[in-house]
Amino acid sequence: MKPVGPIPAGYETIAGELAIGGKRASELVAEAGRTPLFVYSRAHLDARVAELRAALPTRVGLNYAVKANPHLAVIGHMAPLVDGFDIASSGELALCVAVGIDPRRISFAGPGKRDDELEAAIAAGVTLNCESEGEGARAVAIGQRLGKAPRIAIRVNPSFEMKGSGMKMGGGAKQFGVDAERVPDLARHLIGEGAEWRGLHIFTGSQTLSADAIIEAQGNVLELAAELADAIGHGLPKLNMGGGLGIPYFPGDTPVDLARVGAALSERVAELPPVLADTELCIELGRYLVGEAGVYLTRIIDRKVSHGVTYLVTDGGLHHQLAASGNFGTVVRRNYPSAIATRYGAEATEEVNIVGCLCTPLDRLADNAAMPRAEVGDLVAVFCAGAYGATASPSAFLGHGPAAELLV
Amino acid sequence: MKPVGPIPAGYETIAGELAIGGKRASELVAEAGRTPLFVYSRAHLDARVAELRAALPTRVGLNYAVKANPHLAVIGHMAPLVDGFDIASSGELALCVAVGIDPRRISFAGPGKRDDELEAAIAAGVTLNCESEGEGARAVAIGQRLGKAPRIAIRVNPSFEMKGSGMKMGGGAKQFGVDAERVPDLARHLIGEGAEWRGLHIFTGSQTLSADAIIEAQGNVLELAAELADAIGHGLPKLNMGGGLGIPYFPGDTPVDLARVGAALSERVAELPPVLADTELCIELGRYLVGEAGVYLTRIIDRKVSHGVTYLVTDGGLHHQLAASGNFGTVVRRNYPSAIATRYGAEATEEVNIVGCLCTPLDRLADNAAMPRAEVGDLVAVFCAGAYGATASPSAFLGHGPAAELLV
Repeated sequence: MKPVGPIPAGYETIAGELAIGGKRASELVAEAGRTPLFVYSRAHLDARVAELRAALPTRVGLNYAVKANPHLAVIGHMAPLVDGFDIASSGELALCVAVGIDPRRISFAGPGKRDDELEAAIAAGVTLNCESEGEGARAVAIGQRLGKAPRIAIRVNPSFEMKGSGMKMGGGAKQFGVDAERVPDLARHLIGEGAEWRGLHIFTGSQTLSADAIIEAQGNVLELAAELADAIGHGLPKLNMGGGLGIPYFPGDTPVDLARVGAALSERVAELPPVLADTELCIELGRYLVGEAGVYLTRIIDRKVSHGVTYLVTDGGLHHQLAASGNFGTVVRRNYPSAIATRYGAEATEEVNIVGCLCTPLDRLADNAAMPRAEVGDLVAVFCAGAYGATASPSAFLGHGPAAELLV
Repeated sequence: MKPVGPIPAGYETIAGELAIGGKRASELVAEAGRTPLFVYSRAHLDARVAELRAALPTRVGLNYAVKANPHLAVIGHMAPLVDGFDIASSGELALCVAVGIDPRRISFAGPGKRDDELEAAIAAGVTLNCESEGEGARAVAIGQRLGKAPRIAIRVNPSFEMKGSGMKMGGGAKQFGVDAERVPDLARHLIGEGAEWRGLHIFTGSQTLSADAIIEAQGNVLELAAELADAIGHGLPKLNMGGGLGIPYFPGDTPVDLARVGAALSERVAELPPVLADTELCIELGRYLVGEAGVYLTRIIDRKVSHGVTYLVTDGGLHHQLAASGNFGTVVRRNYPSAIATRYGAEATEEVNIVGCLCTPLDRLADNAAMPRAEVGDLVAVFCAGAYGATASPSAFLGHGPAAELLV
């Protein structure tokens, strides 16, 4: 028997079924018209933002990293809730513009911005988080051609990283950002070329559950930002401190102690050096804002036994939930939080393997999991599906197409 | 320095550039109008089919597993070259029908076939490779409702597996097929219910480079098929022996000794027991047919140095080439065969990391690879991109969209 991960708080049971936003799983599927289905919960999004606002100093703004979940209705819901949006492509810019977000609230990071993407961003007034001297030169040239000063921040490759983070984004040689020691020269150069100076973006890691690691990284980021601001000598309009706050996916994971992170950041912010006195601060969160707000619902279409092992075969799979299948950036496969949505809260009476419909042994949703007995037609819920689910999976694989998505 | 995998045979140099189908990489990109671009080579597809026809006994037919590469032009090119097509969804069925393939040449495998997929397949006359008693019952019911006898083969979960295969598809408990000992009862039941009996599908593994392992598996498959045919007592119209032939991706990999595989299979086929005397035999290949025929071309948009390490940042990445990034079913990342397409054959003079444009450290195409010096604007080629590339990658991730595809 292998345990499944912890089911996030805030999901309820109505008439024996998992309910999201006050509606039973089977109702939501009827509303969407089909399975598989991603359901995103407004209540969860609101609650998470409220928790962050309560914990963080008011001076620190909140950005949403669109790549975590670019579903249009989700971006639209986040628009009035957060202060800024971080995008990773002109495709994501188009989505933000489509829901009416002011491009001046948007910043654009990514080590490989094409010229047409730089042009779209500069024309719209988006802040570029410049990742290299070469990109800076291209942005300046495009700005001159457009007759519009590019708004430019510099993404810093810091010499430190966030400890224990799932994705290391700093420390040593990286494809991201500009090595810290070269930042002052580049900043002065870009300012000299007429760019509108927007400050720094320092991203040190992601998916960390340790408050200590986050507190330490934020301290390091503020220290580095102060040093760099001094060296640049032009003030620092804005500092994007990165994110890093993780969510529990696996057995034994516990939530970040947000109160501690917030308290430590408040102390730090109260003691900022003069060079950062007027700097606008923000943190940038993707997974932490939306991950626990999403549930993936898929229908059981076969129940079969092979050599004594019971398989529940669903109409979903890794083409929508690559990370849950254990095939995206993980070495050892562990079970995401999951349940039989239509027998929610019922006693676990058997051990099953829940698999997807794809013709590959990689397509697993839960291994050797204890579940109430489920039949063909029942719905399976995979939790923590709000971030890096629908778009971070190979939805064209084997021709089943994308899942439906619903914000409730 | 880390080596890159072996570049497949049959690619040439024209005017210092990689050429595919007689056209330089830069010409192909101009023709497609953009990068990133998958180029599939007709000459490679033809050559591989010809090699197989020469090596295999004429009695053994050749099926194409569409999931390896469902690009419409590729399916269309394969249509007159192979004997049958294996599909994994009604989406793939629609593609085959779109290029005019007779549905009676098509078989449909997959552990999670939805009712609407069974209906489409039965109505069209596609053979179902039935994966469970439950699926068999649904197929029979749908056939009765449609007034059309479903054409049914049974996919067998054999008790053996192909040794050393990249994906184990048999041996022990599996979500695929019906355990061998239950096959005779199910076959007789389906025949009794009026299904058109089409035989057996026995798939034991994939991506094997060892001729010995393939020869042994094929022997086991023929033995098992004969036993099952005897037990079923209705003859065996057809036997899909599965595939398993791999292609070299990584340093040290060597091609399958196809001549040995073919010779061993010819011997086996000459000595078939009477119960298989009239059985139509086929093998089913995906990756082996199309993998080496594909090249992924992506443009360098930045050349940057971080702490002494040179990064070539491209406009492509894991959203098109998940397996090459090392994030799909692999534990240790190794370099796929790759090259600077616009400086093809030039002397390697530096060590570089070739990365994609995504904002994630997972997005790597070649680590510490020896390459000729390349500049912004040069094209990078990743080989072995013809199978499980475009559709087996999260093309919506970060909003850059799918790559272009071109058959030349």
